[in-house]
Amino acid sequence: MESTSTSKTVPPTVVILGGGFGGLSAAKTLANKPVSVTLLDRTNHHLFQPLLYQVATAGLNPADIAQPIRHILRDAGNITVVLAEVSSIDPSSKRLLTPQGRSFTYDYLIVAAGARHSYFGHEQWEGNAPGLKTLEDALELRRRILGAFETAEMAESEEIRRSAQTFVIVGAGPTGVEMAGAIAELARHALAADFRKIDARKTQVILLDAAPRVLPTFAEDLSASALKQLRHMGVDVRTNKTVKELNAEGVTIDGEFIASRTVVWAAGNAASPLARELGAATDRAGRVLVNADLSVPNHPEIYAIGDMASFTHQTGTALPGVSPVAIQMGRRAGQNILAQIDRRPTRPFKYFDKGSMATIGRNRAVADLKFARFGGFLAWLGWLFVHLIFLIGFRNKAFVFLEWAWAYFTYSHGARLIYGAFRPKVSPPGSA
Amino acid sequence: MESTSTSKTVPPTVVILGGGFGGLSAAKTLANKPVSVTLLDRTNHHLFQPLLYQVATAGLNPADIAQPIRHILRDAGNITVVLAEVSSIDPSSKRLLTPQGRSFTYDYLIVAAGARHSYFGHEQWEGNAPGLKTLEDALELRRRILGAFETAEMAESEEIRRSAQTFVIVGAGPTGVEMAGAIAELARHALAADFRKIDARKTQVILLDAAPRVLPTFAEDLSASALKQLRHMGVDVRTNKTVKELNAEGVTIDGEFIASRTVVWAAGNAASPLARELGAATDRAGRVLVNADLSVPNHPEIYAIGDMASFTHQTGTALPGVSPVAIQMGRRAGQNILAQIDRRPTRPFKYFDKGSMATIGRNRAVADLKFARFGGFLAWLGWLFVHLIFLIGFRNKAFVFLEWAWAYFTYSHGARLIYGAFRPKVSPPGSA
Repeated sequence: MESTSTSKTVPPTVVILGGGFGGLSAAKTLANKPVSVTLLDRTNHHLFQPLLYQVATAGLNPADIAQPIRHILRDAGNITVVLAEVSSIDPSSKRLLTPQGRSFTYDYLIVAAGARHSYFGHEQWEGNAPGLKTLEDALELRRRILGAFETAEMAESEEIRRSAQTFVIVGAGPTGVEMAGAIAELARHALAADFRKIDARKTQVILLDAAPRVLPTFAEDLSASALKQLRHMGVDVRTNKTVKELNAEGVTIDGEFIASRTVVWAAGNAASPLARELGAATDRAGRVLVNADLSVPNHPEIYAIGDMASFTHQTGTALPGVSPVAIQMGRRAGQNILAQIDRRPTRPFKYFDKGSMATIGRNRAVADLKFARFGGFLAWLGWLFVHLIFLIGFRNKAFVFLEWAWAYFTYSHGARLIYGAFRPKVSPPGSA
Repeated sequence: MESTSTSKTVPPTVVILGGGFGGLSAAKTLANKPVSVTLLDRTNHHLFQPLLYQVATAGLNPADIAQPIRHILRDAGNITVVLAEVSSIDPSSKRLLTPQGRSFTYDYLIVAAGARHSYFGHEQWEGNAPGLKTLEDALELRRRILGAFETAEMAESEEIRRSAQTFVIVGAGPTGVEMAGAIAELARHALAADFRKIDARKTQVILLDAAPRVLPTFAEDLSASALKQLRHMGVDVRTNKTVKELNAEGVTIDGEFIASRTVVWAAGNAASPLARELGAATDRAGRVLVNADLSVPNHPEIYAIGDMASFTHQTGTALPGVSPVAIQMGRRAGQNILAQIDRRPTRPFKYFDKGSMATIGRNRAVADLKFARFGGFLAWLGWLFVHLIFLIGFRNKAFVFLEWAWAYFTYSHGARLIYGAFRPKVSPPGSA
């Protein structure tokens, strides 16, 4: 694990920080090449984030969308996977430090530690409006969403029942749209027959965005299609709305107060704070402004990729924080390190955009394949197909396919479990 | 939810405390009968405990062996399911109280709150040797077991590596035997190729019991068969051994110290402390000494069943705490309440013992079907078959079958995820 200087006999050491789409893609590029690679991640698994909202809404199991990183890389004899958190990076001594005081030295470093949600200076909102980035996030949201229906069923006043059956999703990008659709379906189909006192179908799902339209990064006609599909599912879409205040009782937007026990934050990203330790300029989202070859300015031995990189050389604006960008960047960073070792010039990164998709619900999605744009059933089939293809491992593909088939034909969600602490507040304030 | 007195128009109120095998069986017996039933449980799901060890050893997902109670009972219009913890029972006013101060009154009460592990007066051991009763327990054990291999891989001394790769299971009843076999298989097959620095196959699994043989409640020839099968899998079985001391560093038995970071407690049960509130005599395990009809002495309106009841009328000793006993007791308690309402005499409980089984590993098990006793592949097939049949819900049967088939042919475990806090201790004490 400890590396020394580059010599003829000792292969150069590459440390990859993060086992997400970018880090894993870099590791695969460097697999069984003449480098000694250490991949550090604070979890033991690679997570397929695009399907994380289905874990949060009880459609999939955690294990369906996650795989142990060391299992994925088991055939790469030159790669060591270490479960460790990194608390700081020192580019001058080429070292990474863990909170326990362990250190890892590198000759080359790929920083791919991703992003967390940004609350735009209102970090105190996080407790009442968690985001959705990790399996823990997804299980916490699942606990809150299923718990809200239990709270409603036990509610001792109509006011509490209504606030428990009101879900607010802040941010109408792909994650927000997917969450809104999935909660609406959960209430209308999967839970409808299970409760005695409440009508789960009367659940209110409110989707907010400060932008004038949903899916603001998509073409306008697809935004319009998504809006129509969301409304058809009963989602209350409110655009041009900014959150002014947020607490345990609900959300205040532009003077109006929405009483809600369950708020999901799907607005804005902030790159890992480790980005600031690389000594380079960052953009407003905390991302490193990388060179054209993805290296960090003044540090040709460090590459920043994925959600941590702001790459503006191709389109003038930063590429979006989506998995195809991270995967392609990981490949380029790995190839550029191999080029440096061979004393060849590095090559600039070029993103090949195959398009984008967002699902809204059963039979509903939008797709932009560059050569064609469409919404509805065909987009939904395409979305299913693409996500199955990109899931890692045959087992996960097979089980997710079966879960989806089961849910499609029975209208049920298989993973409706609350575990961990659930503390309902069912009495009006001030009562016993 | 609040009930009053029994009259001609208002049906009598039955409260069932606990949605395990006993409570659920009672609820099904009372479904769509002229009673108003409230089932209280502190979780939202019924748990199929016999397969819980497979969640702990990363073979199954939580959702594969658990189902929302309200979903199971959705067609019983007279049953209300409430997610609530009960902190006390007052038989004189026929009321149950929650920690939040809510109360539930009953005309008839079925107490089926189960048991926790007993540490025989050493409750301080629990933190270092958790038991296996709930999904949270199983996920905590999974985190510790998988985390131990990660710790071993990062260990900075041979001593730490060895203690991380040593697993001690205290108690060689069915749960202990199943855990020992499953950890041995996980190490030898599923994890063997994934690590770089350690040899996962060199993992030591030690199974302790104070009794002279494993599976002490089974016939002697089956104990001998189980012992042989365990040894063949490399499990170090030590009987006639009592735990004297247990801490974060390991276990002391009869003068010998075993350094181990991961200890599983599978010895002894203690009934829910609510048993003591019924004003009746309890046995050493805290179970209520019930009447022949399962009612609580001096309280013909209260029934205690499952792991909370000590029923000695049939064999002279208490029936074991296994699911068939609880299921049959639940049925009898429900039928006796219906008899009381109809002013018919209650009937004594009679346990019909169909036999018992324990699995040890791949192709390995023991079975006692009363008319025949055998071990090995046939017992293992029988065990698989019986557990699939008794799992609730077609979805769970199908998915567990597929998980098992997948694991059988690939030798892998599908749910190898660590989530929640993982804090490795990899340095020797005193070092930085």
